[in-house]
This record gives sequence, C-alpha cells and structure tokens, in this order.
Amino acid sequence: MSAAAAYEALKAHQRRIYNLEHVQAIASWDRLTNMPPGAAAVRADAQGELASLIQKMRCDPELDELLARAGDEPLAADDEANLALMRRERIVAAAIPEDLVMRRSAAAGAAARAWAEAKAANDWACFAAPLAPLVDCVREQAERTGQALGIGRYDALLDGFDRGLRREAVEALFDGIAGWLPGMIAAVVAKQAGEPPPVVPQGPFDIGAQRMLCRRTLEMLGFDFDHGRLDESLHPFTGGTPEDVRLTTRYREDGFLPALLGLVHETGHARYQTNLPAAWRGQPLGEPCSASMHEAQALIFERQVGRTRSFASLLTPILSECFGGQPAFAPENMVRLLTRVRPGPIRTEADEVTYPAHVILRTRIEIALIEGGIEVGDIPALWDDGMQRLLGIDTRGDATAGPLQDVHWSQGMFGYFPAYLLGQIAAVQLFEAAPAAGEADSMQDPASITVLADWLRETVWSRGARLTSNELIREVTGAPLSGEVLRAHFQRKYALP
Amino acid sequence: MSAAAAYEALKAHQRRIYNLEHVQAIASWDRLTNMPPGAAAVRADAQGELASLIQKMRCDPELDELLARAGDEPLAADDEANLALMRRERIVAAAIPEDLVMRRSAAAGAAARAWAEAKAANDWACFAAPLAPLVDCVREQAERTGQALGIGRYDALLDGFDRGLRREAVEALFDGIAGWLPGMIAAVVAKQAGEPPPVVPQGPFDIGAQRMLCRRTLEMLGFDFDHGRLDESLHPFTGGTPEDVRLTTRYREDGFLPALLGLVHETGHARYQTNLPAAWRGQPLGEPCSASMHEAQALIFERQVGRTRSFASLLTPILSECFGGQPAFAPENMVRLLTRVRPGPIRTEADEVTYPAHVILRTRIEIALIEGGIEVGDIPALWDDGMQRLLGIDTRGDATAGPLQDVHWSQGMFGYFPAYLLGQIAAVQLFEAAPAAGEADSMQDPASITVLADWLRETVWSRGARLTSNELIREVTGAPLSGEVLRAHFQRKYALP
Repeated sequence: MSAAAAYEALKAHQRRIYNLEHVQAIASWDRLTNMPPGAAAVRADAQGELASLIQKMRCDPELDELLARAGDEPLAADDEANLALMRRERIVAAAIPEDLVMRRSAAAGAAARAWAEAKAANDWACFAAPLAPLVDCVREQAERTGQALGIGRYDALLDGFDRGLRREAVEALFDGIAGWLPGMIAAVVAKQAGEPPPVVPQGPFDIGAQRMLCRRTLEMLGFDFDHGRLDESLHPFTGGTPEDVRLTTRYREDGFLPALLGLVHETGHARYQTNLPAAWRGQPLGEPCSASMHEAQALIFERQVGRTRSFASLLTPILSECFGGQPAFAPENMVRLLTRVRPGPIRTEADEVTYPAHVILRTRIEIALIEGGIEVGDIPALWDDGMQRLLGIDTRGDATAGPLQDVHWSQGMFGYFPAYLLGQIAAVQLFEAAPAAGEADSMQDPASITVLADWLRETVWSRGARLTSNELIREVTGAPLSGEVLRAHFQRKYALP
Repeated sequence: MSAAAAYEALKAHQRRIYNLEHVQAIASWDRLTNMPPGAAAVRADAQGELASLIQKMRCDPELDELLARAGDEPLAADDEANLALMRRERIVAAAIPEDLVMRRSAAAGAAARAWAEAKAANDWACFAAPLAPLVDCVREQAERTGQALGIGRYDALLDGFDRGLRREAVEALFDGIAGWLPGMIAAVVAKQAGEPPPVVPQGPFDIGAQRMLCRRTLEMLGFDFDHGRLDESLHPFTGGTPEDVRLTTRYREDGFLPALLGLVHETGHARYQTNLPAAWRGQPLGEPCSASMHEAQALIFERQVGRTRSFASLLTPILSECFGGQPAFAPENMVRLLTRVRPGPIRTEADEVTYPAHVILRTRIEIALIEGGIEVGDIPALWDDGMQRLLGIDTRGDATAGPLQDVHWSQGMFGYFPAYLLGQIAAVQLFEAAPAAGEADSMQDPASITVLADWLRETVWSRGARLTSNELIREVTGAPLSGEVLRAHFQRKYALP
C-alpha cells in the first residue's frame, strides 16, 4: 500500500467513526430531551453497544501500520497536521489498557450515582467514598498517558483538553491573578455599593413569552436554525453535530435572565461548532482547537457582547414586546443588572469578576489531588479555606455551596476546569483584537455582531485544530494569554480609578 | 465450540444488531420530527454508515459455522424455534448478492425522488421510468430468494412479510371477496341513503385542544406514555422500539377525525410492539408474527373498538370538553359519521367496506407485475379498469387517485399490500373470539378495553414470532382466515337483511 493510500484509508476510518458518533450524539440528545422514563435501561444498552463499537474502531491494531506507511512520503501541510493529530490520538489510546477503561467506566458510574444523592443530601462523605477509586483510575490513566507523551500527570489531563497546555503555565497565570483578584473584587463591590441598586424585573414571566424572547435573541446573535434547534431539558446542555447543533434550556416563571444568558453563552459554542472547517469534517484537523478556545467563544457572546450597554439597548424593545414594559427593562438598569458584582458560593451563578476565584480554587485542588499531594478526604477543608481567602465567603458545613456543586469530578473529568478561566482571558484578548470591537460598548447594533462573527469565523472558527490555543492566541492577538489584560479589562469595564 | 456456546454466540450477535437498530430507529424518528433542514445530507451519511455496518454484521460469514454447530444438540422448543428463524434469515440474506443490494438501493433512491415529484405533478409517466429498473431488481431478488426457499417469486415477497404465506392462498381468499364485495357496497350505500345524513362537526378545531383530545384518547386505549411518545410530523408514522414507541400525527384545524382515528389505529400497532415478549427481545422469536398480524392489531383498535356506538359514547364527553358542545358530537351522530360507507379513490381514506377493494386491486396488479405478466406501463389502464369494476369509480386521467397515491412501490415494497386486507379479516376474527367482545358494540366502558387488551396480550402479543399468522389464527379462533366471516361481519354491523 502506498503512503497516499494509507493516509486515505486513515481518513476514511476517521470519517466512519465520525458518522457513527453523529448518530450517537443524536441518541444522547434524545435521551436527555425526549426519551420516556421506561426506555432508560434499553437505551443504555443500545448506546453502550454503539460506544463499544466505536471504541473498538479507535483501537483497531491495523491503524498502527497505516500510520507508519502514511508517513513514508511528504503530504501537504494541512494533511501533515491532520496525520500528526491522528498519531497523537493513537498514542493516547494505546497508553490505556482495556481493563483500565472498564475499571474507570465502572468507577465513574458509581461516582455519578453517588454525586446526585450526595448533592441532594448535602453530604460530602457519601460522595467521597466512590470518588476515591475513580480518582485512582484517573491518576493511573494520567500517569500512563503522561509517560507515553513524556509529560507529567496533570499535564496529561490538561493536554487532553488543550494540546500543549502544561501545569506550570496554568499555575503561573492563575497565581498571578489570585494575587490581585481579592483586591479587585473589593474595589468593584465598593464602587457599586455607592450606586443605586438595579431594579429587579417583576415576574412571573410567561414561559411562552420566554421561548419567543430566547428565539429572537438567538436569531439576533446569528444562531442558524437551519442547522440547529432550541429545546428544553432538565439540565441544559449543547449537543448535536456541527450541521445540527442542539441547544437546550430550562425556563422558570420567576426569572428570564438565567435561561436567556445561558443561551447567549451556548450560542457562542454553537457558532464555533457550526463554522468549523467543513472540508475537514470528521478529521482531527476539523475539530475545535481546545476546550478553552470553545469556552472563549461562548464567553465572547455571553460577556463581551451580552453584558454590555449596547446589548441591553437591543434587548429592551424585545423584552417589552414579550412581557410588557417595565422600568427594570430600561437599558441603564439592564446593564447594571448584567454587570452586578457580588461574591457568591456557586460558580455557574458568578459574575465575571468573582468567577476566576472559583476556577482557581478548583484547579489548585485538582492539581494537588491528581499529583498525589492530597486525598479526597482533604478536599472540604481546602475548599472552605480557599473560598474564604479568595472570595471572603464562609462555606463551612454547606456541601452544595462546596465541591459538590459541579458535576465534572463525578464523571472523572479532571483537568477541564482551567479551561473556564483560560477561556475567559482568551475571550477578552480576542475581543480586544477584533475590528472595531475593542471597547466594551461597541456592539451598537445587530450588524456589529455580524462583523464580529465574520472575524471570529476567519481567525478562529474555520481554523479547526490546526494550531494549539497558545499558537492561535499569539497569532491573532500578538501576545500570549495574560492575566494583566484581564485586570485592565475589569478596571476599564467597571470604571475603577 | 459446543453447540450451546454456538447458540449463545448467535443470540449475542442478534442482540448486538438489535441494539444498533435501536439507535438507528431513534435517529430515523429524529430525522422525520426534529432535524433541521441543513442537516439532511450529513444525517444521510451518518445513518448510511450505521446501516452498512449492521448489514455487514448480518452477512458475517462466521454465522454459517455457528448456525451449523448450534444445531448439533437439541435445544428447548422456543430456542429451536428461535434458531430456525435465524437460519431462515441467513438463507434469505445469503441469497442476495451484494451488488444486487446496491443496485436495488440506487434504483429505490431514484424511484422515491421521482414518486414525490410525479405525485405533485399528477404524472404517472415521470414515475414509471425509474420504477421499471426498481421492479427489475425486486423481480431478481424475489427470484433468488424464491429459489433458495423453494417457492415462487411473489411467494418469496409475501414470505418476507408473513412467513409461510403463499400467493395461491391470497388469490383464493381475495377472489372470493371480490365476488361479493361490489354487491355488499351497493347494499350498504343504498341502506345509508335512506337514513338521515350525519351532521358534520363544525370547525375550526384548535390544535392545542386536538392535542389534548388525542392524548386523552390514547390514555383511554392504554397507550403507555412511560414507554412512548406522541409527536407531530409532516407524514405521520410509528417508529421507535418496543420500550419506546414513537407515534406521530399531523393536526389540521379543519377536522379532528383523521388525526384521532389515525392515532387510534397506531395505538394498536404500539400496544403490540410494547407487549412483544420481553424475554426474547432482540431475538427473531421476539419479533412480531407478521405484517398482517400487526395490521390486525391496529384495525382491532381502529375499527372493532374505535368505530362503534360505545366508543362514540366514550368520546362524546371528551369532545365537548375539548371543543365545546356540538350537536354533531352526540353518540348517535358520531357513530353514523364513523361508519359512513362511500366509495372513493383513496385507500387510506376508505371506510372498512370499500377498503378491501383497494387492496385487492393493488395485490392483483402487484402479482402480475412481479410474476412478469405485465410491465410498469400497463398499470394505469389496469388500475382504471379495476376501480371501475370493484368500486364503480372513474379514475381515468387522475394519477393521484390512481397508483401514485401510495408510497410503497416507490420504496421497492412489493408484497406488503395483502397484509392490509388479511389484517382486516384477522381483526374481525380475533375480535369475535375475544371474551365478551364478540359483538360490535360490546366496548361499554374503558374497562372493557383493558379486558380485550389483556386477552390480546396473552394470545397474540406475547407470542412474538413463535407461530405463523396462519397457525396463530387457527389456534386462537379455531379456523383459518375466511372471507365469509368478513361478509357476515359487514352484514351484521351495517344491519343488512
């Protein structure tokens, strides 16, 4: 077999896997939005069958020979990059023995069930017991992958979400931010305390009207309903495929902002997804650059666009049309609501200034846990201490305000949290580099959203996984990720002296 | 490998295929209910990938050896039956060379596209051209399968939908019915002409109220919303799996009866599906007995239960609640509406007395076409002649009132039509054999529906594919399918002298 034929065979293999994952993605979306309860067990069997079939295809030993042959002759630059990504996937897959995959899957199942119960019962200990063996599996996997790639344990986990990202860089960046953040939070809170408090919109807010509000806002932000849907589910998520992005949300009559802002965030994810390079669909090169870059796109929409004076002006007439006029809907008031800073214990409800503290604390605990410095039982004390020092909040005795609040660890998902803060910084830097969008209030009308999106499509979305996050940020903004840029952004946006 | 191990390996193989088909079924349902238009092409690729993977599993040459070994030692009776069904599937699959599968698939794709255009343009010729090569493929497939099974061409097609069913038996039964049917239709029409015409319900009928009506009716008929859903789609269908039956319908403001009666019909299909033997799920023995037995369950619900005086009495209060009271909703009037007999050109809109004529005509044309007595170009003339003779209707020049009205042939689905009339007869015979349900008006309250369903579950649904239709009907009713029973049923139900 020629080198070219071997490479084509590898591409075809990737496409087959991608096609099967498409069907799996739709089945997963259906499971969380539509499936009647009595079908849960058989659906788990059915999707498990497809997952194990895909897993077998990924580990097909024939791939090694094809990968070796494909490298015999030079390829075009993009194809070389695609082949390198295939090789890397193969190294990572080969580093994990099948029995570890199965042990980890069993441990994650037990931890996921315990997490839901522990959260409901506000009982950390009930989650800690099944979490410990899952952490052992993740450590073993990180150790093996790290050895195969020649990097450390936590490095290996980071690398899985953000190629080339290393613990050292994350710690340096986060420690720098942790240095100035408490002072920044105090300054913004003090400044806002001297301003009139925002008027809170008066509910109830009709669910049908909220649906209309969200649909119109998504259309304004360029969400493509020819290639996606908006539905409802108990726990909102974004699923589907690049050509068929499936957003979900949950409406509550007592407030429309959580659903609306959640969807503005998800629209950023969706537009990235939809605009990945179609020519590379199904290939590693056609994947998103990284978890942090994905998060950055969502945050550009949610924060750089969605929490500004000009976005509030676009929103006011739609709000009045959906719910009738209210003093709270005036743009001046809406922007105060959208930029209100107040330390709180829940990450997903945090404003942008206190948000980094949540991520920094999680990341520090994760690193210590995976590298072996601490054990699961040490987490609550570290949590309470960190929340006190970074945010001035007392979380003692309230596990739901503590490490139980996020689902990630219960799924064995360690190494992802940094992406939330890296993405936040990347969002600020990318937005400042965007044409005519450097200022927080430059989104004067829906047309400026199109200008921004066109630029993101060209510089980020259509590039797929060609560059690492670090390479991409440097190329687009001329500088690496910087905590100082975030600091300057906060000072400007919150008008600090 | 021992015989027992070989049989277990075969069962596991069947379960794997079944699991993958579950995911495929959900993806198909999603495609027809939810998928945004821009995802059509990639979805076709994705589902095609899974379909070809399933097809490869079905044709795995390893199966032959397992089938041979599994027969070395005797099994329990049900397992023997299951193994026999596996063998039969293998013979049928092996009879069709891969190039025929591909030629047929290409021909069916072209015919399906042409059918939609031809129907819209009322132009038979535009459909006939791509239908001819598809018919050639079906003939070849029927010829090869027939040779492998030692039966005739049309027999082979019938056998695929109804194991053991032969052309000779169908023709004898249908010819007998065709003999008395025109006279029966004339007699019922004449009798109803002497009665006051039914009052037609006055629309528009709010779509939300129709949704409520349909949901409540389905609940009354025992549709299990813990194992199924009701949704909307352009062309109503029933999909999903036994644990997750997906009904769809389409509501129109100008009338609620088509959606309602369509769903009553589909509920019969759904309850059969849900109550197939759980212990044999995924195995050939756990499949429905036949297409005609499936149709019979739907028709028991739609006609034996759903078009009676007592069902009308159950419906009246729900109708008044959903739409407000109307004189048309009185039970006496509703039952006249539901049992109105009038020859018309469209099969799916036909009442139960004229319905057999549509099926008989289709079947006669199909047989001649597959056995080679006629060609595609001969169909319109045969159609017009048959409609005139059986129903007294002039369909000349109106292709949408002619053979273009049904989708089946455009998909290469020949040999299915007889199931509609065989199912109609089976529905009458089964209902007459049911406890306390022998009379048309015995469904006095919702509880009697439960009694009927319990009996059907025990005698039909839970039996899976253990018996052929013929064996099952004989066992349950003590007699084979009989046109005379249908005739007597019409005479009694329409109070003919």
